[in-house]
Amino acid sequence: MDEQVKVAVINDLIASELDGEVVTDVTELEKLSNDAYSTIQAVELPITAVFAETVDDVQKVLAVARHHHVHIVTKGASTSVVSGSRGRQTEIILDLARMNSIIELNPIDQIAIVQPGVINNQLDREARKHNLFYAPDPGSKKISSIGGNISTNAGGMSSVRYGVTRDQVLGLKVVLADGRLIELGGRTLKQAFPYDLTHLFVGSEGTLGVVVEITVKLLPIPLGQPMVGIAFFTNLTEMMRAVSALRISGVYPTMLEALDGRTVSALDRFEGTNYATDNRAMLIFKLDFSSPTIMQKVREILVENKADNIDISDDPTRSAALMKLRDDMLPAIFAGKNHVMEDMALPLSKMAEMMDFVSEVAEQYHLDIYVAGHAGDGNVHPSFVWDKEAQMPSTVATAVGALFNKALELGGTISGEHAVGTQKSSWNNAELGDTVDYLQHQIKALLDPMNILNPGRKID
Amino acid sequence: MDEQVKVAVINDLIASELDGEVVTDVTELEKLSNDAYSTIQAVELPITAVFAETVDDVQKVLAVARHHHVHIVTKGASTSVVSGSRGRQTEIILDLARMNSIIELNPIDQIAIVQPGVINNQLDREARKHNLFYAPDPGSKKISSIGGNISTNAGGMSSVRYGVTRDQVLGLKVVLADGRLIELGGRTLKQAFPYDLTHLFVGSEGTLGVVVEITVKLLPIPLGQPMVGIAFFTNLTEMMRAVSALRISGVYPTMLEALDGRTVSALDRFEGTNYATDNRAMLIFKLDFSSPTIMQKVREILVENKADNIDISDDPTRSAALMKLRDDMLPAIFAGKNHVMEDMALPLSKMAEMMDFVSEVAEQYHLDIYVAGHAGDGNVHPSFVWDKEAQMPSTVATAVGALFNKALELGGTISGEHAVGTQKSSWNNAELGDTVDYLQHQIKALLDPMNILNPGRKID
Repeated sequence: MDEQVKVAVINDLIASELDGEVVTDVTELEKLSNDAYSTIQAVELPITAVFAETVDDVQKVLAVARHHHVHIVTKGASTSVVSGSRGRQTEIILDLARMNSIIELNPIDQIAIVQPGVINNQLDREARKHNLFYAPDPGSKKISSIGGNISTNAGGMSSVRYGVTRDQVLGLKVVLADGRLIELGGRTLKQAFPYDLTHLFVGSEGTLGVVVEITVKLLPIPLGQPMVGIAFFTNLTEMMRAVSALRISGVYPTMLEALDGRTVSALDRFEGTNYATDNRAMLIFKLDFSSPTIMQKVREILVENKADNIDISDDPTRSAALMKLRDDMLPAIFAGKNHVMEDMALPLSKMAEMMDFVSEVAEQYHLDIYVAGHAGDGNVHPSFVWDKEAQMPSTVATAVGALFNKALELGGTISGEHAVGTQKSSWNNAELGDTVDYLQHQIKALLDPMNILNPGRKID
Repeated sequence: MDEQVKVAVINDLIASELDGEVVTDVTELEKLSNDAYSTIQAVELPITAVFAETVDDVQKVLAVARHHHVHIVTKGASTSVVSGSRGRQTEIILDLARMNSIIELNPIDQIAIVQPGVINNQLDREARKHNLFYAPDPGSKKISSIGGNISTNAGGMSSVRYGVTRDQVLGLKVVLADGRLIELGGRTLKQAFPYDLTHLFVGSEGTLGVVVEITVKLLPIPLGQPMVGIAFFTNLTEMMRAVSALRISGVYPTMLEALDGRTVSALDRFEGTNYATDNRAMLIFKLDFSSPTIMQKVREILVENKADNIDISDDPTRSAALMKLRDDMLPAIFAGKNHVMEDMALPLSKMAEMMDFVSEVAEQYHLDIYVAGHAGDGNVHPSFVWDKEAQMPSTVATAVGALFNKALELGGTISGEHAVGTQKSSWNNAELGDTVDYLQHQIKALLDPMNILNPGRKID
């Protein structure tokens, strides 16, 4: 990066009298230029960073970027796991964390309008005061922003029942690369007038525009007491048969989480429990609505599908204890270790095969991999772990490549809910084919002809 | 249309040896060039029509259109209510009704892959053999095609619980205007890799490409016995208060249908019932899952919100009798009359105001308007009726304009689930604003630079 350009960019940003702040302190820039969950450790120092506070700020930053032909990377709460929001040396970090107001929460319309920096859990907590909730529950719920969730089309455990982020978005305000502010969608639950540009921006990882305001649905908290349960199976194939039977039975589970034998062992070590026998797979499930009929039905289905050690409860204390097993799963796996978690989604009929393949790959490459996933929607998350002091094993990249190829071969996708970032963007033609890959670039070129927005992420 | 071009187009179509059929018979062309539910009676004779039977046919027809610079209008089951698929004189009708195979119905993956000509109800019936169902239930369910539903992003009564057509679509195969066949999305329930072009094509009314294959979710039939009920309210404002309370209570209704006093009177005439007293509004509702707790809760909410003559049942015979009231509503209104039904969606808090405004407009213009709607998602359907022998009253267009302006003023949309077609396309800048209107044309120009696909619909 030419030093003169850098100085000019910073001077122009300062001269544009932002409501927010221009960051030039190197230590702070180094911190900002990293993602909290990045596996790539190297840090490039960006030109500068701006804490935007208003839409006007966003427009001014884009104007400076266009003028100097430099790039923007938009940042929410820094929880990308695909190196989506790391700053690079040709970039201005556009940090939206301070745009964190809940502008409106309307219990009659059952919607909220928020700024992108609002933390997912913060909105959810506010909604619950009105017997509503914000459904998307990525693992990062407590720390990730709605803007970031929009950017990645974040999913979660309850997607099997309530859908992913995209399903909750009714409207967006977006600053386009050319600086224009547009409004897409609105606050009605049905919309059949426009082209669906609203959802084109959801999951576009900041490459098509800067989302500055979001209208989402809020859902009613289901009436009645939820039930939570666990059950064990000889292998993942048997488990997926039970998952399929549970799904199709019409009991509408809110959560169906699969843990392989190794993950169960890790959980035992962490909890002091004794669930791991014969490398059995574990299913943790939740239904938001229980009744004696439903509990009976669920138990029957599990027994028919050869589950054992079934434990189901609608008692709040016992339910919470069972839910804690799922909450503790990642801490149990990651305890004292470094890790990379991958993310693939498969047709439901192929999930067991994919999970078994992960174990084969682990053996082949002598890697320590734990496999868990959202079994209700075919979302597999293998976690690679290694010692805190050690380097990432050199075979991880090769192993991940093998998993991705297998997922595609089985009709799956190599990103179920974590998006693409810079880490998977070289897989575009493998996943999409050359024609759709090209079409995506046409859309990108239409909306951002100077390629100033998050270059290298998503599609490059 | 130049007669020589016309002859050349037909000759080229015949020479391209389609698997399907080229129609030149004038009587058949006249029939094909009309929509079954069109309010505009004039018929333009199109150049010709093609019953396509294969993707190859679709590509060949587009090649002929590009070569001669003539247009295509894609047609499903002819049930557009916005003159979306009428043929015009510069157009070839591309009729996809014969592409009506269910290619795959996979109960494990809980998806179906269908051709566009498959009738909505046909897929639903097949799915039910596996304890699954196809959720979107537009009023035209028994006669409209999945392709048409995709084109319009069709809704229905159960959208309040299961969403609209867009929410069920996982993947599409599309022939682009340039003839290339692309595959968007796939068969996984979570997808975070590509730009969401899949849902951009849903609701695009055939203006961006020709959808030739569709992958949809199938949902499990909810376990247990549904309950159906009716209740009456002094006015629509009171009713919407109850609707809001029912929604937020967490009982997750499948259907919440509002009928104004005039509609109830029409129903009484048709059924021989005696529900209409003091112009009371009627709510017909359904919950897919009943339990004593839920029935009690629903009853309490209705009483608290001043409903009377409450009648709720989970007895199958009684439930069916109550559901029949909703099924008979349109026949009751339209009996022996001509009609136009309009379609607007409002924020839930504005629905009662909108419905009351319709009554004011009816009075002001001395028009016969019945107002009903999907109260659970703010979708208002005013029906204008007039005598079979008479011309459409000259003030209908003005009255519709007044309704549309009011809907926009209240933060609503002038198309909730019927799309735009040619009838509402002049409202683009009013609904979307100039910038989004322009952006839509940019997207259109990118994908169809010769403007050969369904010109004049949706965005012009």
